[in-house]
Amino acid sequence: VTTDYTALTCAHNAAGFHIPATADSATAPVVPQRGTRRGLGVTDVHLDVESFWGARQEVNATATFAHCVAWMERLGWLENFDRIARGERTYARAGWQFSDSEVYKLLEGMAWEHARSADPALVTIFEGLVARVAAAQDADGYLSTAFGHPGLPPRYSDMSMGHELYNVGHLLQAAVACMRTGIGQHLVSIAHRAADHVCDTFAPGANESLCGHPEIEVALVEFGRATGEVRYLEQARVFIDRRGRGILPVRPLLSAEYFQDDTPVRDAVVLRGHAVRALYLSAGAVDLAVDSADHDLLDALRRQWQRTVERRTYVTGGMGSRHQDEGFGEDWELPADRAYCETCAGVASIMFSWRLYLATGEVAYADLIERTLFNIVATSPAADGRSFFYANPLHQREMATQAHDGVNHRAEGGSRAPWFDVSCCPTNVARTLASLGAYLGSADADALTLAQYAAGTITAQLTSGLVTVRVDTRYPADGHIRVTVVQAPAASVTLRLRVPSWAHEATLTGADGVRVPCAPGWVDITADFAAGDIVELDLSMTPRLTWPDPRIDAVRGTAAVERGPLVLCVESTDLPEGVDLDDIRLNAGATPVAHGDGARISAGIIATPSQPASAPPFGVHRDVPLVHEPLDLPLVPYHRWAERGPSRMRVFLPIEVDRT
Amino acid sequence: VTTDYTALTCAHNAAGFHIPATADSATAPVVPQRGTRRGLGVTDVHLDVESFWGARQEVNATATFAHCVAWMERLGWLENFDRIARGERTYARAGWQFSDSEVYKLLEGMAWEHARSADPALVTIFEGLVARVAAAQDADGYLSTAFGHPGLPPRYSDMSMGHELYNVGHLLQAAVACMRTGIGQHLVSIAHRAADHVCDTFAPGANESLCGHPEIEVALVEFGRATGEVRYLEQARVFIDRRGRGILPVRPLLSAEYFQDDTPVRDAVVLRGHAVRALYLSAGAVDLAVDSADHDLLDALRRQWQRTVERRTYVTGGMGSRHQDEGFGEDWELPADRAYCETCAGVASIMFSWRLYLATGEVAYADLIERTLFNIVATSPAADGRSFFYANPLHQREMATQAHDGVNHRAEGGSRAPWFDVSCCPTNVARTLASLGAYLGSADADALTLAQYAAGTITAQLTSGLVTVRVDTRYPADGHIRVTVVQAPAASVTLRLRVPSWAHEATLTGADGVRVPCAPGWVDITADFAAGDIVELDLSMTPRLTWPDPRIDAVRGTAAVERGPLVLCVESTDLPEGVDLDDIRLNAGATPVAHGDGARISAGIIATPSQPASAPPFGVHRDVPLVHEPLDLPLVPYHRWAERGPSRMRVFLPIEVDRT
Repeated sequence: VTTDYTALTCAHNAAGFHIPATADSATAPVVPQRGTRRGLGVTDVHLDVESFWGARQEVNATATFAHCVAWMERLGWLENFDRIARGERTYARAGWQFSDSEVYKLLEGMAWEHARSADPALVTIFEGLVARVAAAQDADGYLSTAFGHPGLPPRYSDMSMGHELYNVGHLLQAAVACMRTGIGQHLVSIAHRAADHVCDTFAPGANESLCGHPEIEVALVEFGRATGEVRYLEQARVFIDRRGRGILPVRPLLSAEYFQDDTPVRDAVVLRGHAVRALYLSAGAVDLAVDSADHDLLDALRRQWQRTVERRTYVTGGMGSRHQDEGFGEDWELPADRAYCETCAGVASIMFSWRLYLATGEVAYADLIERTLFNIVATSPAADGRSFFYANPLHQREMATQAHDGVNHRAEGGSRAPWFDVSCCPTNVARTLASLGAYLGSADADALTLAQYAAGTITAQLTSGLVTVRVDTRYPADGHIRVTVVQAPAASVTLRLRVPSWAHEATLTGADGVRVPCAPGWVDITADFAAGDIVELDLSMTPRLTWPDPRIDAVRGTAAVERGPLVLCVESTDLPEGVDLDDIRLNAGATPVAHGDGARISAGIIATPSQPASAPPFGVHRDVPLVHEPLDLPLVPYHRWAERGPSRMRVFLPIEVDRT
Repeated sequence: VTTDYTALTCAHNAAGFHIPATADSATAPVVPQRGTRRGLGVTDVHLDVESFWGARQEVNATATFAHCVAWMERLGWLENFDRIARGERTYARAGWQFSDSEVYKLLEGMAWEHARSADPALVTIFEGLVARVAAAQDADGYLSTAFGHPGLPPRYSDMSMGHELYNVGHLLQAAVACMRTGIGQHLVSIAHRAADHVCDTFAPGANESLCGHPEIEVALVEFGRATGEVRYLEQARVFIDRRGRGILPVRPLLSAEYFQDDTPVRDAVVLRGHAVRALYLSAGAVDLAVDSADHDLLDALRRQWQRTVERRTYVTGGMGSRHQDEGFGEDWELPADRAYCETCAGVASIMFSWRLYLATGEVAYADLIERTLFNIVATSPAADGRSFFYANPLHQREMATQAHDGVNHRAEGGSRAPWFDVSCCPTNVARTLASLGAYLGSADADALTLAQYAAGTITAQLTSGLVTVRVDTRYPADGHIRVTVVQAPAASVTLRLRVPSWAHEATLTGADGVRVPCAPGWVDITADFAAGDIVELDLSMTPRLTWPDPRIDAVRGTAAVERGPLVLCVESTDLPEGVDLDDIRLNAGATPVAHGDGARISAGIIATPSQPASAPPFGVHRDVPLVHEPLDLPLVPYHRWAERGPSRMRVFLPIEVDRT
């Protein structure tokens, strides 16, 4: 795939680095200087609280933020800042070296949430946290509770694993949210000083190292965009160009690939190593490529995205096949049971895809974002917003034996945990949900694009004026999406809707009432819209079988069931007494039918295979189990699994096979 | 399975703890006080140097020992002892905290090798190493180069991961080898003092902790048996009983299960956590159960072995399904590509099975030992004995990009490495090969059992006198095994042969020339043997398809090919130009035929599946690839893979399927 990027228009600012905030981009998390699409702002989108995502935003606002603050207080991760501020010597520091970043991610999320809901109580908490962070900053801008102070290792003494620049990166992202939402000026000045310190320290000719965990790159670009200061963009370029040359010391049991220091970004062919690291780096590299009109770099990243999606991505959109190193696997290495699919990798994948969408306008990026939102981001938090999945496997073999009510030391276990020893996911979910509106679509000169569907109201500033639409839908419970024009400029504008890649029987009913079939991809309706005009998209939510590529060894001979954007799963909770999840086979030729918010499909129960006595489970006789008892098998949305208590779970279900 | 152990006879010593060395048990690594079988001694078996195992013993003796010493010198692991001896303060210690154990495992191997080949050059090296170890021992018997000296953490300050008792365990095992082979008296006295220090320190009422890596248990029992000192047996009991009660501090990202501190040994139902830890612990627990006539404990261990073998063991005999934590997976979690199957876990599995065999005489234990010897132990070392596999996966997706000529930091990579950052496997292979003769069979009051087959001469002391047999065979290249009686007592004795579980067309030809079919299991020939009598066992070495239990998701729809005790594999090396290993399908109904030391089977090449553009590799259409080109597929023994250079490799081969 080669795109002529010289043809890309700069939607709103072709020359300089400073992006003047426009009415509708002011509150966007990502505001590139070039590209084909301009993202919506958080304040441009108001989701109904009853909608799938609106409900989650509400829980996030009312439960998750406070939950995260309480845990960070309880574990001393906030106290870390106070100790540094007091100049105390550290003896036993609480938390990992990246715990500061959780505070910053939460601050970022709170800033977006402030723009969304303007809750004064949240602002009070926010300001209190900022004050504690501020007090810990050194005079020269350095800010860390894990290095560079009495009792702690020296500054930048462990670039591979120290996470100092990673932490600053999240601080800068929080500051961007503050600048664009109008709170937290104090945090912005902290970030400014921290960013200047980073640029001074890591300039060419100075400390020519880089951070083992990418994040500073994507953060510096956006901070540069928000502040209009070129040096931050330049420093991001320095870090990205520096990477992949084996600069980082490799610890025993790790490898350069782990932190993408094996191959320069522009030379790589696929994502590899630690998934979140790889995806954050890629997101930052897209930003750099776009803002510097580096077509080769952008092409390289698009190719990497494509190969990664085609060969290293789960049906849930999840990325990361290995618990070991929390890493990508090799091509076709997609085990269901040991899928890591870290929630943060889902968030990071959306960051990467969103930037590529803005750059190119291509629908595949929005398709993957949908898949990831509904099956990773929505899966992680419990309904009450107070516990989370860290890893998102597609097969749970053993039922979790406990409801985790304390810190979960391991990113596994089959039940959502309130907090983790490494607790990157809860705050990542929080900031993503708070800013979710911005990812629902984009505004071009004369088009409003709805890339994702949720009931609510969306406003966009087009060249010819403001357009406001009301979206009514029960999506994804229902595939009917009605878009009503509330306000439109007196000019011809385009309403662009996404027909998801999975939707093969979609129809569009225009303002004229004419219903036409439409294929997956973008569908443009260009008209002189008037208030009250209605456009309706109907997507078939009939459950469907999904078949893995035959090169995926781990799920050979199985199929999954999907319904709309939702991956479904079987939970042991729904099985008749005495039926073992491992003993179920889909009937060959069975077709799933809708049932509740899930599906049912005809299946059978096999007899437990004959087992060789005291020998490995491999024998000379092919043991093709015969289905002997029919089962009308219920499936539920994957994102709800384990919400009714611990369960065994499968997404991929073996198909009954003939003896051959 | 419940066995009435009250019926077990004590083969050679029913009462006391001290085992008087007999002519044929003097050089055995494992000499239980009770049980149904008495193992052979290393000096009772002389393998032909041309035989499968004899050749490997020779390479081990002439190349591997020196190779290991050179690497430990080069990396400073030996110098560690010298520094401690000189009283130097340690600033940057070379190697991991368990590097001492590599020296001890090598010493153990050298002692066994001395008994086998009596090479004076080896003795010189041995004595030199012992002198350096001796000089590092503290006055009170404590011996460690990683703790308890200037610049190092205090003694026993990290029981979870410090490995201090683990190291001592390997020292004691080396000392046992010394005692039984008659060299290294100096090392025996070092071990005595170290063992006494351990008993003093960790006695009930003193430090009531335990070591995160089991090994001291199995070592203390055998040291107790060798020295006749009850306190060592008692201390082993203390450690085993103490375990499983959550005593060990659990580090972040680990769990009590990792070091089997989650459940007491006698309450556990299956092996779990770190595989080598679990297996060393189990071996020691069998020793304890046998010597203390603890039938409940022995039954528990037999059940754990059975479930582990039936559900958590690879067709190669390999154990450990996860790179993460080098651990066992859950039941049926047996991925081919990410199989860890650490070489040391293979060694440890043989230790566990051997002890259960001695206790019960059951053939299943000997069957698994064979499987593990030929497919794990034989796979690890290269033909030259100077590089090793650490992990033994059953599917290599990507070809190794380099021949490792330095330290391999990771236990993976698809090519044998000369040494590892964590280098437990080379020395474990070395000590196992040096003592291998002892695992080939056993001697009871009136029976010589041949549990494994290799060309050579075996002598055993039975009640009625010495029996010596000459075994002629090209096993495993050929299934014909001729046992010629060289010497026999003037009494009726039994020659017991193992018909392996895989051998379904075995025949036995007695001294009378009558040929009879025999089923898998033990076959006893009881006679008044005379010199020149010949018994012949014929095992069919026709290659066969091996089918996985249908509950193993990872290899559904595939089969493996085995030939005799050897698992075979396909290497990309043997494929026609342009054929991708992933594109091969076995023809349904195909039967493998012998070819060289491997096999051939009819297969086909599929077209590369159609690939959805820029989407995860899952689609609405079942993509059943059609075989369009025939291929006479060659397979080679798995233990030889990657010997001709880096390759892609598969053990389990997908079967062509019908569209359903």
